[in-house]
Amino acid sequence: MDGNSTVRVGVLGYGNVGAAVVALIGENGDTIAARTGLRLEVARVAVRDLSKARTGFSGFTDDAASVVTDPDVDLVVEVIGGIDPAKSLVLAALEAGKPVVTANKELMAAYGAELFDAAAKAGVDLLFEAAVAGAIPLIRPLRESLAGDRITRVLGIVNGTTNFILTRMTESGQTFAEALAEAQSLGYAERDPTADVEGHDAAAKASIIASLAFGVRVVASDVYREGITGVSADDIRMAGRLGYVVKLLAVIDAVNGEVAVRVHPTMVPAAHPLASVREAFNAVFVEGAAAGELMFYGRGAGGRPTASAALGDVIDAAANLRQGTSAGVPGLASARIRPMDEVRSQYYLSLDVADLPGVLEQVAAAFARHLVSIVQVLQVGMGQEARLVLVTHTAYERDMQATVAELRDLDHVDRVGTLLRVIGGEQ
Amino acid sequence: MDGNSTVRVGVLGYGNVGAAVVALIGENGDTIAARTGLRLEVARVAVRDLSKARTGFSGFTDDAASVVTDPDVDLVVEVIGGIDPAKSLVLAALEAGKPVVTANKELMAAYGAELFDAAAKAGVDLLFEAAVAGAIPLIRPLRESLAGDRITRVLGIVNGTTNFILTRMTESGQTFAEALAEAQSLGYAERDPTADVEGHDAAAKASIIASLAFGVRVVASDVYREGITGVSADDIRMAGRLGYVVKLLAVIDAVNGEVAVRVHPTMVPAAHPLASVREAFNAVFVEGAAAGELMFYGRGAGGRPTASAALGDVIDAAANLRQGTSAGVPGLASARIRPMDEVRSQYYLSLDVADLPGVLEQVAAAFARHLVSIVQVLQVGMGQEARLVLVTHTAYERDMQATVAELRDLDHVDRVGTLLRVIGGEQ
Repeated sequence: MDGNSTVRVGVLGYGNVGAAVVALIGENGDTIAARTGLRLEVARVAVRDLSKARTGFSGFTDDAASVVTDPDVDLVVEVIGGIDPAKSLVLAALEAGKPVVTANKELMAAYGAELFDAAAKAGVDLLFEAAVAGAIPLIRPLRESLAGDRITRVLGIVNGTTNFILTRMTESGQTFAEALAEAQSLGYAERDPTADVEGHDAAAKASIIASLAFGVRVVASDVYREGITGVSADDIRMAGRLGYVVKLLAVIDAVNGEVAVRVHPTMVPAAHPLASVREAFNAVFVEGAAAGELMFYGRGAGGRPTASAALGDVIDAAANLRQGTSAGVPGLASARIRPMDEVRSQYYLSLDVADLPGVLEQVAAAFARHLVSIVQVLQVGMGQEARLVLVTHTAYERDMQATVAELRDLDHVDRVGTLLRVIGGEQ
Repeated sequence: MDGNSTVRVGVLGYGNVGAAVVALIGENGDTIAARTGLRLEVARVAVRDLSKARTGFSGFTDDAASVVTDPDVDLVVEVIGGIDPAKSLVLAALEAGKPVVTANKELMAAYGAELFDAAAKAGVDLLFEAAVAGAIPLIRPLRESLAGDRITRVLGIVNGTTNFILTRMTESGQTFAEALAEAQSLGYAERDPTADVEGHDAAAKASIIASLAFGVRVVASDVYREGITGVSADDIRMAGRLGYVVKLLAVIDAVNGEVAVRVHPTMVPAAHPLASVREAFNAVFVEGAAAGELMFYGRGAGGRPTASAALGDVIDAAANLRQGTSAGVPGLASARIRPMDEVRSQYYLSLDVADLPGVLEQVAAAFARHLVSIVQVLQVGMGQEARLVLVTHTAYERDMQATVAELRDLDHVDRVGTLLRVIGGEQ
């Protein structure tokens, strides 16, 4: 194999993902060379703490900037995470004419457009499959396989921690706190679980998926976001009785040239493919105008799964580099982000009410005044313990919120429970 | 847009898929041009019966060979199906230096290697995403996203007709004949359902997937094949009691450099992602050494879904044509196809037995003599109606077949029921 087919890789970050990238290049390097004619060589690895560097390899450094500018590095893999210093390192690599593969969702969600511009200017690849849904191949399907189709909606379970917690609450009847503690003990949740349970991680991924699916500029702060801390074991039981499963969904809709992107706990019909995505798995469900329903399922996190996705990108970028081409960056147009008030969903709502004649009439009148029509009502319990559970037809969020506000003021409504959107079986 | 960016497409075949390809180019042509800079133009359409050609378009012909050689055709889409004349038309197009996009699974399963050679010689693309699993993006994920990983196993529900029939038998308790009749009335099954229910269609797709996943030459006749006509409503009920769902699976394993490819009815654990693939949907479940479990789900047939996949390929091939490059064909090595006898599975078997002391001992001894160990036994019914249902540990097919042969000869075994493999929860 001649020198030209060797591509020297600089890896920024040596945590779970970085170490797995290095290990996989070692394990599969010969097969990759045989299949593609490309010999990948790990030239330099930037590590935060040099004392953690593996012995027997002289390429470790704690000076990440030197890796990016090293003339012996042809291609850069960024798996540090976070904005700073990842952003300046990626920009420096692109400016030096080096393709970059990144697994950094925060960075792509906040600065994707700027980074794409830099990649386009340099004429090199910026690939980020590992930043979207871990090991799940999503970018090639969305950008290439569906290039002749029109995507109308994307629904995603894109955070494994919250899916694990909701699975435990559903299948074992655990409380949120119990399920979170188990997720933490298994390493699925951080000690501070905010980024996962409040939906920040999912919102970052939703913004990247929205950009890819609809070719428009969406950043994380455009995403309406609710976490799962308000979901009770009781809501999940009631959802089950009504034929639904509760999932934290990223919901991305194209509506008349506008894009609506939101992350919130959602009731999904039990027969919907997303309902059977269990434990820490992720899945992205795509509706194409011609293709119909598609779903992509797999591990959304973890060192080796994420490294597998990154390595697919490395091989692509390396092949393009050797051919003097690049994959091209997604052209991102501007589109209005539809505010949550104008988004339409079905809703689930539970109300603790006094078990008296006329209460249902009062409640129904409140819905009717805001043009929200009810598709299903269930009374659970009697007397002091009476509860009404309602599912609505599709309605505007602002009308539903106005209904909830009015319900709170009704005399015989003691408590307005969690408001959940119902998605995937629209009526 | 200048003339160079226009790519003139010749479509061979004007059935459901061909008509949908033409329609989609019309519907989405402007968007495709805006996104990719390529203007797709349907130049010629070969139709079997000219009286079925749409009016108002002069490009229809019943001379398919003239489309392939027409200098006004840059790229050929083959959606005729079958071997003859599709094979010679595809070869002629490739020899004329024209990229070909095909949805023809029989052709690719039987002559893929020969066609790849012709494409490589001509330096043009031969793309076939639509030939594998309809609308489901599978080739780019397998060939590109997982290029740095090692695939160990692929399990696929790749025939919608049989999945529909098995879903009906499972959920409505229908017999095979009733479910088949319903599938026929809905247009999911042909009047002669042999190709579907005997597993021929699934075997063709399994051979293509095996070639792609493992880079080895596999043709349809290499695939061990059993259809679903022997699966009774009773087997399905019993599977349910044991926590399984019956699916017609394509099972593709890499074992020590050999490849085993088989299609047969299979018991899948109810919690396995494939178990919840219902109705006429398809899904391909892939195990990567690093990526872990992945699944790709969607419509495996139908005019518009298949056309969506073909159009993704058309755009790819058109872009490569304009850049003077090609995607490259999969390099297919030779590998030994492991014969079914040497393949290992778990098994489910039901036996009608006399309800007498010592019968279980006799049965267990037959299993033990062939080194097949039993993981679960269930006795159902009593007296004349007694039935033993057994699930084994993983065993060699030849040992299990020898066990079955011996069981048939036992005095107190009245009937040996369907033998089903159990896959997806190996013990």
